[in-house]
Amino acid sequence: MKGISSAVIRRLPRYYRYLDELLENDVVRISSKELSEKMNVTASQIRQDLNNFGGFGQQGYGYNVEYLYKEIGKILGLDKKYNLIIIGAGNLGQALANYTDFERRGFYLSGIFDVNPRLIGMKIRGIEVRLIDELEEFIKKNPVYIAALTLPKTKAPQMAAQLVRFGIQAIWNFVPTDLHLPKDIVVENVHLVESLMHLSYNLKAVQEENQEKK
Amino acid sequence: MKGISSAVIRRLPRYYRYLDELLENDVVRISSKELSEKMNVTASQIRQDLNNFGGFGQQGYGYNVEYLYKEIGKILGLDKKYNLIIIGAGNLGQALANYTDFERRGFYLSGIFDVNPRLIGMKIRGIEVRLIDELEEFIKKNPVYIAALTLPKTKAPQMAAQLVRFGIQAIWNFVPTDLHLPKDIVVENVHLVESLMHLSYNLKAVQEENQEKK
Repeated sequence: MKGISSAVIRRLPRYYRYLDELLENDVVRISSKELSEKMNVTASQIRQDLNNFGGFGQQGYGYNVEYLYKEIGKILGLDKKYNLIIIGAGNLGQALANYTDFERRGFYLSGIFDVNPRLIGMKIRGIEVRLIDELEEFIKKNPVYIAALTLPKTKAPQMAAQLVRFGIQAIWNFVPTDLHLPKDIVVENVHLVESLMHLSYNLKAVQEENQEKK
Repeated sequence: MKGISSAVIRRLPRYYRYLDELLENDVVRISSKELSEKMNVTASQIRQDLNNFGGFGQQGYGYNVEYLYKEIGKILGLDKKYNLIIIGAGNLGQALANYTDFERRGFYLSGIFDVNPRLIGMKIRGIEVRLIDELEEFIKKNPVYIAALTLPKTKAPQMAAQLVRFGIQAIWNFVPTDLHLPKDIVVENVHLVESLMHLSYNLKAVQEENQEKK
């Protein structure tokens, strides 16, 4: 698996999503041409991307949807189940906790933690919000590798460092700051404000183009 | 501004965020070397990126933080104010509505809409949730170009098409599906499940490496 460009890796979840939809619609096989039309990328890109992992396609037959779905799932590590905890039971933490799509992919919410005593005891889909002080004990008893971080910016770096000490291996970071952690800790950032700025850049470009046309 | 790679554009919001932090800490100027250490990218990348927009730096002086912050802000279209509506007042829609960081960047929430009559009248930061039927009338009275979409997958394509008919120019799409819209409509996707899959891929790689070391 080494030496595959991060751009290809970034595209795999999208393949996985499309294959999932095809499976739901009982599609058994698909050509790279048909898949390319659906996904709005070139058929040659699809073939190139999937060749990185040994192909899966057969000349004249196309791809077996279920097989390709499962293989990409394995590559993405989706053939395992993971426990996930959420740190921060504010609005975003609650929204994530309520998102059942994650479970379909093998990510099971096992705990929600907050510093705010007023939130303690509140239940989200049957899971009680716990005080952050219980975190170390909880992780000892319930092996968990992934923590979603939805805290205020000022508290995030310290909490991230603590999570790593407690054995967390991957942080899904919703806090608008970069975490500086050891190299073997996975950090996946979801920077919402940056996404909105990117939208704003493109909106500005479109508006300027429309202006020029007038 | 044409011909700038999308990778550079994607990096600009991060520069903007760091410059904002420097401003908050009353830093007046910074060298590309200092900035590179903070941001964990090479100084030459920083110089290259910023040269795309005419430089802003002066030999021996470095960058004027406030000037650079404002210039990047202009490039990103953040010198204007935008009204934003949210379609879908579920957990994620509510979380977005409560996110005050957006306003700091010039994105003002002006309306929240849902199909569920039970949510109608609920207020989030003073803004009432309205029935989706009022959308067309609302947009006529309150010019708004950006809509955040937090709906179930099945309802999203139709709603997106409707939003475009009503004059929306940019969709911030949180629905795990690709929207097929006219070319001059900006779509910025936040695919949370795909982000989690990417985390999973990296977690698997780290775990395999740790296994090999043993």
